[in-house]
Amino acid sequence: MAALCEAAARWAPGLWRRAARAAAGLGGRRFGSGGAQGPPTFGFLLDIDGVLVRGHSIIPAAREAFRRLVSPQGQLRVPVVFVTNAGNMLQHSRARELSALLGFQVEPDQVILAHSPMKLFSQHHERRLLVSGQGPLVENARALGFKHVVTVDELRAAFPVLDMVDLERRPKTTPLPRNDFPAIEGVLLLGEPVRWETSLQLIMDVLLSDGNPGTSLASAPYPHLPVLASNVDLLWMAEAKMPRFGHGTFLLCLEAIYRKVTGRELRYEGLTGKPSILTYRYAEDLLRRQAAQRGWAAPIRNLYAVGDNPMSDVYGANLFHRYLQRGQEGAEEGKPRPLAAQSCVSILVCTGVYRPPGPGSLGPAQGGEEPPFHGHRDFGLSPGLMEASHVVSDVHEAVRLVFQKEGWALE
Amino acid sequence: MAALCEAAARWAPGLWRRAARAAAGLGGRRFGSGGAQGPPTFGFLLDIDGVLVRGHSIIPAAREAFRRLVSPQGQLRVPVVFVTNAGNMLQHSRARELSALLGFQVEPDQVILAHSPMKLFSQHHERRLLVSGQGPLVENARALGFKHVVTVDELRAAFPVLDMVDLERRPKTTPLPRNDFPAIEGVLLLGEPVRWETSLQLIMDVLLSDGNPGTSLASAPYPHLPVLASNVDLLWMAEAKMPRFGHGTFLLCLEAIYRKVTGRELRYEGLTGKPSILTYRYAEDLLRRQAAQRGWAAPIRNLYAVGDNPMSDVYGANLFHRYLQRGQEGAEEGKPRPLAAQSCVSILVCTGVYRPPGPGSLGPAQGGEEPPFHGHRDFGLSPGLMEASHVVSDVHEAVRLVFQKEGWALE
Repeated sequence: MAALCEAAARWAPGLWRRAARAAAGLGGRRFGSGGAQGPPTFGFLLDIDGVLVRGHSIIPAAREAFRRLVSPQGQLRVPVVFVTNAGNMLQHSRARELSALLGFQVEPDQVILAHSPMKLFSQHHERRLLVSGQGPLVENARALGFKHVVTVDELRAAFPVLDMVDLERRPKTTPLPRNDFPAIEGVLLLGEPVRWETSLQLIMDVLLSDGNPGTSLASAPYPHLPVLASNVDLLWMAEAKMPRFGHGTFLLCLEAIYRKVTGRELRYEGLTGKPSILTYRYAEDLLRRQAAQRGWAAPIRNLYAVGDNPMSDVYGANLFHRYLQRGQEGAEEGKPRPLAAQSCVSILVCTGVYRPPGPGSLGPAQGGEEPPFHGHRDFGLSPGLMEASHVVSDVHEAVRLVFQKEGWALE
Repeated sequence: MAALCEAAARWAPGLWRRAARAAAGLGGRRFGSGGAQGPPTFGFLLDIDGVLVRGHSIIPAAREAFRRLVSPQGQLRVPVVFVTNAGNMLQHSRARELSALLGFQVEPDQVILAHSPMKLFSQHHERRLLVSGQGPLVENARALGFKHVVTVDELRAAFPVLDMVDLERRPKTTPLPRNDFPAIEGVLLLGEPVRWETSLQLIMDVLLSDGNPGTSLASAPYPHLPVLASNVDLLWMAEAKMPRFGHGTFLLCLEAIYRKVTGRELRYEGLTGKPSILTYRYAEDLLRRQAAQRGWAAPIRNLYAVGDNPMSDVYGANLFHRYLQRGQEGAEEGKPRPLAAQSCVSILVCTGVYRPPGPGSLGPAQGGEEPPFHGHRDFGLSPGLMEASHVVSDVHEAVRLVFQKEGWALE
């Protein structure tokens, strides 16, 4: 016992005290028998909107969940990363907001935004890219490594005759055409912009003109300039009773317009955010680093992804689980990854976009009809991948379930 | 000759003087031998953008054309209506703009906007409708007979949690839900709005909630609330070298979102503007009244529709021609229309959206590939209907062609 407690003390001082109390029969079970446990071999990927918060408000179950996940000393008992498909914000602002809502210190490197894995697209970091989104857009693009970005507003200012939808923003006179504007070499879609008509028009102009929107070509180049996009969520859940448009709805409009105007399909050179495997590999890596920082020696074997969106959270977790299984078999990259997780379990909560069949579900779904597919075109309809390993009412029930599966005491 | 000239004098005093000069050998042919002609039995339906003007500027050929169409006294020699698919403006403002550009007095009742025929949808005039567009939106809706309209901005103010895309316009707090807002009974789309994300979201909320956007239904009602739309033009031509988004692009986005979210097709209870037959019947009626007002006794037999957009101007004119032919056979409404026109000839100009095959044409169109279909979904692809009776360089050439066909002297 002593040896174990000393070992425990090395990786969780708070736990040591609880273990000591437990040994001394001082009601140590108040925080569960975690003290008798080795270091965690599992970690959480927690979605934010619809799981922990809705709009401005915390979902009560989230507080309960973190009472179990965090020690009285405010230390996480298991590694946790927050994986959101939001993007129009800075990592550290989101961490600060979460800290305030959850009542413990969330570090910026625990937060994964939809575009965080774009750091890996170094082959495009030197290109001159049109960037679309809002909030700290340029700051985000630069932080991701993109050195030469042009905003939609900057392009609009350079070519005032392009943006004609808003009668009040149309140029009052016809400016001289300019030919001194360096060509755009790609499009970076970081999140839903404002004034969709302007962004959709200028993005189309860039694609149809091969990066020179002041000109007109005999035919639209195809393949078109590279397009990178993060967050393909069609809908997300805020305060309103019905889901709100996400970046996926903006992309849907862009894809529809491109198809209608050119007769071809818009192609993405890269998609990040859930359900892309890239995002889950990124999250797994952060969980492993977190465990190492806390001195938890045991490898993280099981990942639990808790989310409210079957098309991103469940689909992504299941897709990654399949990837991990192949990795175990050594099929991935020719060799197994010794420290890699072995499983990624998808847990779907009912506090967000997803509603259990019956009242509240979107779509006509009349007479037992299949509900419409809300996932992104490029991830296709794979019904198996949208079936969660577990469906629970909320994130608290999810944590209880995981603790039970991992043999961690609840109370 | 004298009798004929007296007859001529009754319907065109200026012409009388020219005829007299011609008789006296005083170079009357300067204005053509129109004096020797009876009253016109043909009329023009002229598109505006891409035919007469591009953005702020008049197309030079339009001035030439009107030198032939207008007498030195500033009187039209043949009936003319201006049929535009624009809608975010007032009829009399457009007439005033045209008067200034063309240098003669254009009357408001010579201008047909995309939504003008909505006056005929009286079964919806008493309904409470969500109206989308910009400019003098409510004034236009009321002028068309719609008595109870709610703008997107009014709906947004009533339900602040619906419009969540723009981070800066999101409500800072969560307002209390309200249930005192009367249900919306239909949607009226008069022209492209600004901030598409807001209009698309709120229109979807109204359709999915059956007119009560503060609530959430078990399933989206289908058929949904009636939707009326005017102007389905995907693209139009302004100063920019490439075409700009029209209302049809906004509708395309709405249709794509509705299909993705519900798995069903958005349905329109009414579509006005070119190429709808309703619009051409409306135009024919105005031409007939115009001729009557000027005392031109002979019925208007041949209509000439000059436009730059194969999908609206040519398609619509050909569709109406087919309708007129059936009418002549008595197939339409069980009996022939004795005073109806007999033909509607489509004339396509190259000063706007349409570019002759070769440099400048939109779409990939590689290796003799068919160009993409830019018409609206509901008018379908009928290649025959998109083939103009005549393709000419500009509106001046179009007028010369028509005068020749009608046996009117050119010089």
